[in-house]
Amino acid sequence: MSERTIFFLSDQTGVTAETLGHSLLTQFDSQKFRQVTLPFIDSEDKAREAVAKINKAAEKSAARPVVFSTLVQDEIRAIVRQVNGLHLDIFDVFLEPLESELRQKSSHTAGRAHGMSDIESYMKRIEATNFALANDDGGVTRNYEMADVILIGVSRSGKTPTCLYLALQYGVYAANYPLTDEEFDSGTLPEILVKQRRKLFGLTIAPARLRQVRRERRPLGNYASAQQVNYELRQAEKIFEKYGIPHVDTTEFSIEEIASRILDSTGVERRVRP
Amino acid sequence: MSERTIFFLSDQTGVTAETLGHSLLTQFDSQKFRQVTLPFIDSEDKAREAVAKINKAAEKSAARPVVFSTLVQDEIRAIVRQVNGLHLDIFDVFLEPLESELRQKSSHTAGRAHGMSDIESYMKRIEATNFALANDDGGVTRNYEMADVILIGVSRSGKTPTCLYLALQYGVYAANYPLTDEEFDSGTLPEILVKQRRKLFGLTIAPARLRQVRRERRPLGNYASAQQVNYELRQAEKIFEKYGIPHVDTTEFSIEEIASRILDSTGVERRVRP
Repeated sequence: MSERTIFFLSDQTGVTAETLGHSLLTQFDSQKFRQVTLPFIDSEDKAREAVAKINKAAEKSAARPVVFSTLVQDEIRAIVRQVNGLHLDIFDVFLEPLESELRQKSSHTAGRAHGMSDIESYMKRIEATNFALANDDGGVTRNYEMADVILIGVSRSGKTPTCLYLALQYGVYAANYPLTDEEFDSGTLPEILVKQRRKLFGLTIAPARLRQVRRERRPLGNYASAQQVNYELRQAEKIFEKYGIPHVDTTEFSIEEIASRILDSTGVERRVRP
Repeated sequence: MSERTIFFLSDQTGVTAETLGHSLLTQFDSQKFRQVTLPFIDSEDKAREAVAKINKAAEKSAARPVVFSTLVQDEIRAIVRQVNGLHLDIFDVFLEPLESELRQKSSHTAGRAHGMSDIESYMKRIEATNFALANDDGGVTRNYEMADVILIGVSRSGKTPTCLYLALQYGVYAANYPLTDEEFDSGTLPEILVKQRRKLFGLTIAPARLRQVRRERRPLGNYASAQQVNYELRQAEKIFEKYGIPHVDTTEFSIEEIASRILDSTGVERRVRP
C-alpha cells in the first residue's frame, strides 16, 4: 500500500488541526501516514501555495492526501476545498450549529483576539512554569503553601515532565518531591509533606518499565537493579496507603493522560485554558 | 445574559475536545462561558452520569449547555446525544468520510493503542525535556551538537518556557542561551554559538512588555529600567542582524505560537506528534 500523506492546515499554529487529526487517525492504526503541518495559512495566496503542495503529494502517491484544517475565513476554506484529497475542516462543520445555538454570527477572524486576557494567560503559564522549575525534585520545600498539587514518587516515575506539562498547559502550580531512602527506610513522610497531605498525589510505575528508564539514565550500579527498583516501589506504595494518597500508575500513560488524571482525581482547577 | 456552560467530554483526557472547543468558541468572544471538562467517560454508566450532570446545568441556566466531545464508541455517543444541549462530536462528523477515504472500518476502540510506539514517543518527550532542563540558560554549552535548535535572547524573552514546550509537545531538542553584557558590549556571539549558527533562533519582545515582565520578577534596580531594557533589546537586534539569525517577536504570541513559528521558520522536524 502506498503511503498516504496527512496535512494539517491552519491560519494559526496547526495545533488544533493536529490534535483533531491524531484523535481520528488513531482509529486506523494499521495504516502508515506521513504527516505534514502547514501553519499560518492566513491569506488566499498562502492557501493557493498550500493547495499546490498538497496536489503535488497527491500526484506522487496512489492514495489521496487527507487534509485536516482549522481555517476561519470562508474565502480561504473555499480555496483549500478544491484540493485533490479529502478535506475536513472544523469550521465547515461546527460553525453553523454553534452560530444558531449561540444566536450570534461568528467573528470570522483569523487567530485569537490578543487582548489582555491572552497576555494574562501567557503570564500565568510562565509563572506556573517558573514555579515548577523552582520547586522541582524536592530541592525547595518552602513554597508548598502556594502549590496546587505536590507530586511524590520514586526517581524517574515521571514527576518533572508532568509538573512542567501541568504548568505549561493549564497554569497549575505543581511541585514535586522525590521519595528516597529516608522515606523508604522509615516508611514515613517528612513533616513538611504531612502538613500538605491533601495536596499530595503519587506516581507509580511498573518495575520493568522503571528499570528500563533508569538503565538509560545510569546503566551501572544499583540504581536500575531489580532488587532496588522493587524495594523502592513497594515502599512507595506502602507510603501512599498509609497516608491515603491518591496515585496513578504512569506505565501505560502519556504525559497528557497523567496530567488529566491528576486534575480529575484531585479536583484542582485549571488556571488557564489554552 | 445568563452564563452558558461548555462541557468537554471524552473517553480519554479531553484535551482534543478542549482544543476543538476553544478554537470554535474564540469566534464568539463577546460571550462568557463556564468551562467544565469531563474526562475518561469510557462506559455507558459514566456517560449517563455525565448526561445527568449536563442536564442539571441546563436546568439552572436559560442558555442550554454546549457539549464538545470525542467519544469513539457508538453506544456512548448515543447516550450523550440525548443531552439537553447542543452536542458536537468529532467522530459523529468525521469518522464516516475518513472510513470511506481510507477504505477501512475504524477500530472504534476507546483510547489509543498503547503499543511500543507510544512508549517510544513518551521516552522521546521525556528525553527532550531532560535535554531542555540540562541545557537551559546557557549553563551548559557542550551539548549544542545534539540540539535541534538553540534559542537566544535577552533575559525574560520567553526562552525557557518555549524550550520546554518544544520538548514536551514535539520531542524537539531545544537549548537556550541568554544574551548578557558580554554579548551586548562586544556586539558578537561566543565561538560556541557561532559554530552552531544555523541552529540559532532569536526571541525579541516589545520594551514595554519586557519591563512589565521583569518588574514582576525583580522590581528594584536597573533590571527593569527603560534604559537597560532598550539597550539590551537594541543590542540583541543588532546581533541577530549581524549573524543573519531568524527571530520572532514574542510580545503578542502564545507559547504555542512561538513554538510553531520556530518550527516553521527553521524547518526543524517534530520528533513526536502527540
